[in-house]
Amino acid sequence: MDRRVKVVFGQAVTAKIIADASDHLAGEDAIAGLGGLHGFTGWRGPWLTDSGGYQVFSLSALTRIDDEGVEFSSHIDGARVHLNAEIATDIQHRLGADIIMCFDECTPFPADEDRIETAVKRTIDWARRCKREFSVLGSQLSADNRQLLFGIVQGGIDPELRRRCAGQIVEIGFDGYAIGGLSVGEGHDNMVRTVEFTVPLLPRAHPRYLMGVGMPVDILAAVRAGVDMFDCVLPTRNGRNAFAFTEQGPLRLRNSVHGDSTEPVEPGCDCYGCRHFARGAIRHFFNSGEMLGPILLSLHNLRFYQRLMANIRKHIEQGDFDAWAAAEMERYAWTDNK
Amino acid sequence: MDRRVKVVFGQAVTAKIIADASDHLAGEDAIAGLGGLHGFTGWRGPWLTDSGGYQVFSLSALTRIDDEGVEFSSHIDGARVHLNAEIATDIQHRLGADIIMCFDECTPFPADEDRIETAVKRTIDWARRCKREFSVLGSQLSADNRQLLFGIVQGGIDPELRRRCAGQIVEIGFDGYAIGGLSVGEGHDNMVRTVEFTVPLLPRAHPRYLMGVGMPVDILAAVRAGVDMFDCVLPTRNGRNAFAFTEQGPLRLRNSVHGDSTEPVEPGCDCYGCRHFARGAIRHFFNSGEMLGPILLSLHNLRFYQRLMANIRKHIEQGDFDAWAAAEMERYAWTDNK
Repeated sequence: MDRRVKVVFGQAVTAKIIADASDHLAGEDAIAGLGGLHGFTGWRGPWLTDSGGYQVFSLSALTRIDDEGVEFSSHIDGARVHLNAEIATDIQHRLGADIIMCFDECTPFPADEDRIETAVKRTIDWARRCKREFSVLGSQLSADNRQLLFGIVQGGIDPELRRRCAGQIVEIGFDGYAIGGLSVGEGHDNMVRTVEFTVPLLPRAHPRYLMGVGMPVDILAAVRAGVDMFDCVLPTRNGRNAFAFTEQGPLRLRNSVHGDSTEPVEPGCDCYGCRHFARGAIRHFFNSGEMLGPILLSLHNLRFYQRLMANIRKHIEQGDFDAWAAAEMERYAWTDNK
Repeated sequence: MDRRVKVVFGQAVTAKIIADASDHLAGEDAIAGLGGLHGFTGWRGPWLTDSGGYQVFSLSALTRIDDEGVEFSSHIDGARVHLNAEIATDIQHRLGADIIMCFDECTPFPADEDRIETAVKRTIDWARRCKREFSVLGSQLSADNRQLLFGIVQGGIDPELRRRCAGQIVEIGFDGYAIGGLSVGEGHDNMVRTVEFTVPLLPRAHPRYLMGVGMPVDILAAVRAGVDMFDCVLPTRNGRNAFAFTEQGPLRLRNSVHGDSTEPVEPGCDCYGCRHFARGAIRHFFNSGEMLGPILLSLHNLRFYQRLMANIRKHIEQGDFDAWAAAEMERYAWTDNK
């Protein structure tokens, strides 16, 4: 993958791809009937769906996992849900995302070596099954509606397991390659070390995607290591919780210090909230439970991440990314949640 | 007031004036410090604030009312709040709305004749005190920041009390005149009869404002009677509760009948929601507690009311309002909540 393609995928991170997880979206038939995710949400840009592997891990309502697949209780209605490679691929196919992900097993941090090794074996086996299922489904699609299937590399922070998993996943062959199983509590340094080790194992000609990351300092370090795309809930989840990202540092808008402030959240920002509202007003919205607060800060944080990614692309194109990123990582040291 | 001015005020109803009630907005000092309501909210168009009289009535946490004013427990923190003509005027002045309202006593429906008569006497006395207080405050304002003070006519559905109150309020003299105390359970016919009786008692050279109304059929009947402006929570409150107004009839978006619908809420509508989302998707947002549902239907209902008011102005200008309105009132008969 040359630098130019990297730029395109970099833009996708916050601006063009809205990531979603299949098992959070009950009723794939209803969504498929309403024009798939694009028609259902009104978002005409690219969609990426996750397979449900991470969500099974994060919701921890697991009741059974074996080589075949997983069975768990829905966090919505308690119903027993069966998910495996074929089902996860089929659901994502029907949802109609542009990029869909292999079904994988994500391990917690820390985890026993045995458990990680078993998860890696399953992730490889399931990737093979996903590709086979995808081939069958993909043949039903028209040429202008082609989905991409990405493989996922697991292996915790163990170099040997990462190497083994990456080798097998690349051999199976996918449209893009993701590094999964990070941002689960291992901390910034472990994460960066694992990313720097794993990225060179993935082909440059295909997009390389770091899942569930992250804070600005994490993204800068991962791009430096060669990562092309990301997904993360931070801009909107933090926005809903009154936390604003700014180039000048974090703002927690519930704090009384903002009560009288007539400043925008981030001076110079062109987002809707910064153009129309003072910090004092946004603090009032949060403290009085007015949904305008979460809306405005979510918009602001997305705009902040768009600017961050645009700056990353600009400095890659200018050829001075490494020097610029080093300074930026100092600026965003507060986002290093190790 | 000629037809042209009526058009301008008609536009104000849903598009340009956002009504608010002083006692719902604790912290007028904070808001004043953040640039008043215009600066605080980012809404640069006209603002109208109510005096708190109706809110005292509707919240029913009254503990004392006499000729001096009212004392009640705040619905927010339970603190005792004292409100009277001077305080209500002063708060609204500091909030910086373009139009502020006299402090009045609103009676429930039905109410004893004695109670309504006492409320009318107080409303007249308080209007006099509001105008006096407003004169003192108004002299501190610059010429380009002039507020308008509107008087309010009370009197329930009793023609004699309405006549007496209107005569006194007009004699005191205000920038505009409101009909208060309706839309409190008296029903469409009683409301229309009272409006038709009261409007001719108010000078044509000043805007005439029907407070807290209403459904499309109520607005059409009131404009026919000569009313120029309205305020109402219906577009947004109903929107938040999954109720959509359309020219083809009401839609309740939680109903399962909409689950598979790929139609927009109102075909042909240019609002954001109708341009981007199907009924089936909006139903899903409501059923899953996603705030996009209330947002989209609030926007749609506001757009619906803007179109209704634009059509009213157009037919007033064309000179065929009465014939057109008669047909429209048939169309919106379902909004007659008598």
